[in-house]
Amino acid sequence: MASVNPNFLKLASGYLFPEIARRAKLWQESHGGVELLRLGIGNTTEALSPAVCSAMHHEIDLLSDRATYTGYGDEQGNTSLRKALASYYKQHWNVSLDPLEFFISDGAKSDAANFQELFATDSVVAVQDPAYPVYVDSNVVGGRTGNWNEKASCYDGFVFLPSVAENGFIPTPPERHVDIIYLCSPNNPTGAVATKAQLKAFVDYALREKAVIIFDSAYSEYITEPCYPHSIYEVEGAEKCAVEISSFSKFAGFTGVRLGWTIVPKTLSVIEGGNEMLNKLWNRRQCTFFNGASNISQAGGLASLTGKGYEECRSLVSYYLDNARIIREGLSSTGLTCHGGVNSPYVWVRTPHGLSSWDFFDLLLDKAHVVVTPGSGFGPSGEHYVRISAYGHKENVIKAVESIRRNVSL
Amino acid sequence: MASVNPNFLKLASGYLFPEIARRAKLWQESHGGVELLRLGIGNTTEALSPAVCSAMHHEIDLLSDRATYTGYGDEQGNTSLRKALASYYKQHWNVSLDPLEFFISDGAKSDAANFQELFATDSVVAVQDPAYPVYVDSNVVGGRTGNWNEKASCYDGFVFLPSVAENGFIPTPPERHVDIIYLCSPNNPTGAVATKAQLKAFVDYALREKAVIIFDSAYSEYITEPCYPHSIYEVEGAEKCAVEISSFSKFAGFTGVRLGWTIVPKTLSVIEGGNEMLNKLWNRRQCTFFNGASNISQAGGLASLTGKGYEECRSLVSYYLDNARIIREGLSSTGLTCHGGVNSPYVWVRTPHGLSSWDFFDLLLDKAHVVVTPGSGFGPSGEHYVRISAYGHKENVIKAVESIRRNVSL
Repeated sequence: MASVNPNFLKLASGYLFPEIARRAKLWQESHGGVELLRLGIGNTTEALSPAVCSAMHHEIDLLSDRATYTGYGDEQGNTSLRKALASYYKQHWNVSLDPLEFFISDGAKSDAANFQELFATDSVVAVQDPAYPVYVDSNVVGGRTGNWNEKASCYDGFVFLPSVAENGFIPTPPERHVDIIYLCSPNNPTGAVATKAQLKAFVDYALREKAVIIFDSAYSEYITEPCYPHSIYEVEGAEKCAVEISSFSKFAGFTGVRLGWTIVPKTLSVIEGGNEMLNKLWNRRQCTFFNGASNISQAGGLASLTGKGYEECRSLVSYYLDNARIIREGLSSTGLTCHGGVNSPYVWVRTPHGLSSWDFFDLLLDKAHVVVTPGSGFGPSGEHYVRISAYGHKENVIKAVESIRRNVSL
Repeated sequence: MASVNPNFLKLASGYLFPEIARRAKLWQESHGGVELLRLGIGNTTEALSPAVCSAMHHEIDLLSDRATYTGYGDEQGNTSLRKALASYYKQHWNVSLDPLEFFISDGAKSDAANFQELFATDSVVAVQDPAYPVYVDSNVVGGRTGNWNEKASCYDGFVFLPSVAENGFIPTPPERHVDIIYLCSPNNPTGAVATKAQLKAFVDYALREKAVIIFDSAYSEYITEPCYPHSIYEVEGAEKCAVEISSFSKFAGFTGVRLGWTIVPKTLSVIEGGNEMLNKLWNRRQCTFFNGASNISQAGGLASLTGKGYEECRSLVSYYLDNARIIREGLSSTGLTCHGGVNSPYVWVRTPHGLSSWDFFDLLLDKAHVVVTPGSGFGPSGEHYVRISAYGHKENVIKAVESIRRNVSL
């Protein structure tokens, strides 16, 4: 009889967001017709940039004419888009990268999940706790953990780096040796952003311990305060030890259009085989397991990086950041302790009266009809927090904050 | 030091198509400016269907308005598309499937490569030989093979099912027990198509041996002769043992737009854990490693399945099938032995005078300036064949056939 990959069976429960959707749906079914205000998933809600739409319409026009039709593109992405991304990094963050170090994909989630495949099964993995569930779940499937530890609410074998109020939600490097470290700044879910010095501590650690950092910068365009690095390559030495994964989803509203990228420097040397090894392996992985991102999405992504498209996408970001301000200020004024939401679309809210994350989730759902994300779904240190997302129409965000103020005794 | 997944290092050489591109590029560089006629990769060349383009334009219009904008869709794909696919199977092939058994993806290549992740590492895998390289390469990375065996020109540990002229390029089930069998009909690369009786032999084997069949039907719309099954579910019992992977690429010209689907029946019972296990595991895999196919591509795919869109896509298929006829008839008249090309866009040509596949590739490149695909790239039994693809503008296909007739002594 065909046997299943036993690592899949270690996955503790449904993926967080489907579980939230299930609870919300159940609640709605027993409260026929009541409208829910959804600030759970980080799902964009505003219209795409006109310049981006225009570029995608144009791409479809090219595909509708046999003289300009194109089929398979390069698995690594269109050269024009890879070059535009290299220019974008140079222009905005003064980071010099070779276009051949950029790999375009159907989104940061796919890359964040798939990248672990390149590493040996016995690699030791460190993650911020709390963290985006994909880092952990993909490594569970990759066989780098023990079983789910019900008592500790985490997987045995992982090295968790608690990101808690005491350290401003940015951990220091682990005491022990690890091989792979996932970092995300601005952070999902806590909304915290790492300083250059904080990232440098990780880069120094990675160079010393010969560990690979997988840096998720999907929210970098949400940084509003000066002096925070937008890319890990702003830190000297990162080009020798860090991979960066990023996305058009939260900058250009491409959550449904699907487009992301991963940077694998050719100079990355902290890996068996040395320079170019990881770049070549990821190239081979993408050529074997992937067939390139949609040409239409790539045309849109290209338009978002310069000129009018860039300005319009910046306006989208400002819109959501203003929502984050409304949430932060509104909930703080009720006495709730709020973190994040300044350089991030996420507000990380401490539950009142020691409530568990899911209990506060249920309370907000039941009393305020607001859907949030339980912090414990992101890791054990997320317990006693909920993540509130600034993605939503402003009028709904205002309504949600008002509903919490009016209907929830805090 | 971070270690790499040793299975990646077993991959014998560059993926076949990049290697062809490299050789063609090298040749062009030393023959400045000479135009090459490309019948190598199965890459569509004709304009997209107007109805499909119109549906994608409309989707972008919806995304450009905040009242109709949508972000993340379901990881499994849009309900409307899953339902439309279920109706398409019912209407065209009289196959009854539940929409929840369909999983929409960014293409059949991704699914064909990723599906092996669900199985135990010690599963024994059988593939047709020759076969689409992704089946083999993904299982090499998955750790289900030994090393590359230079002498045998294949990986140790695989069970190869030779598909050769003597069996009409459709093998019989293996003599020994295996856990997973990849089958592709109409076949890439040989162009052969399996009868219902031939598929039934595999289904009977799979039910008896409790093996999972992974059936690739990406070319099913190219079947022109009656009585060949388009879906493996036309064979009784297949719903208990077979997964089907398919694509909009070759039917609707979506090679660059990216869209495919995989069917995982809830009734599949030949797996540890029984009914629903594989459907649930694939669902979990897609929810964790994937974030849904592009909403724009899905809108286009939906339009291709019914009415005017379906008719227009059928015309595209007829156009390429006519190209296949031109290749088959043209090369047969030069004395070459040609297979396939009747129910398939691929013509499988025996090399003359016992030439190796790569030698005949080089000869056609050098003398006729025609790029084909060496059969040996698809497996040891592909040696002494080349695959000629019918994808191309008809005028170029005619030119290529004429160039071979005129310039290559056969």
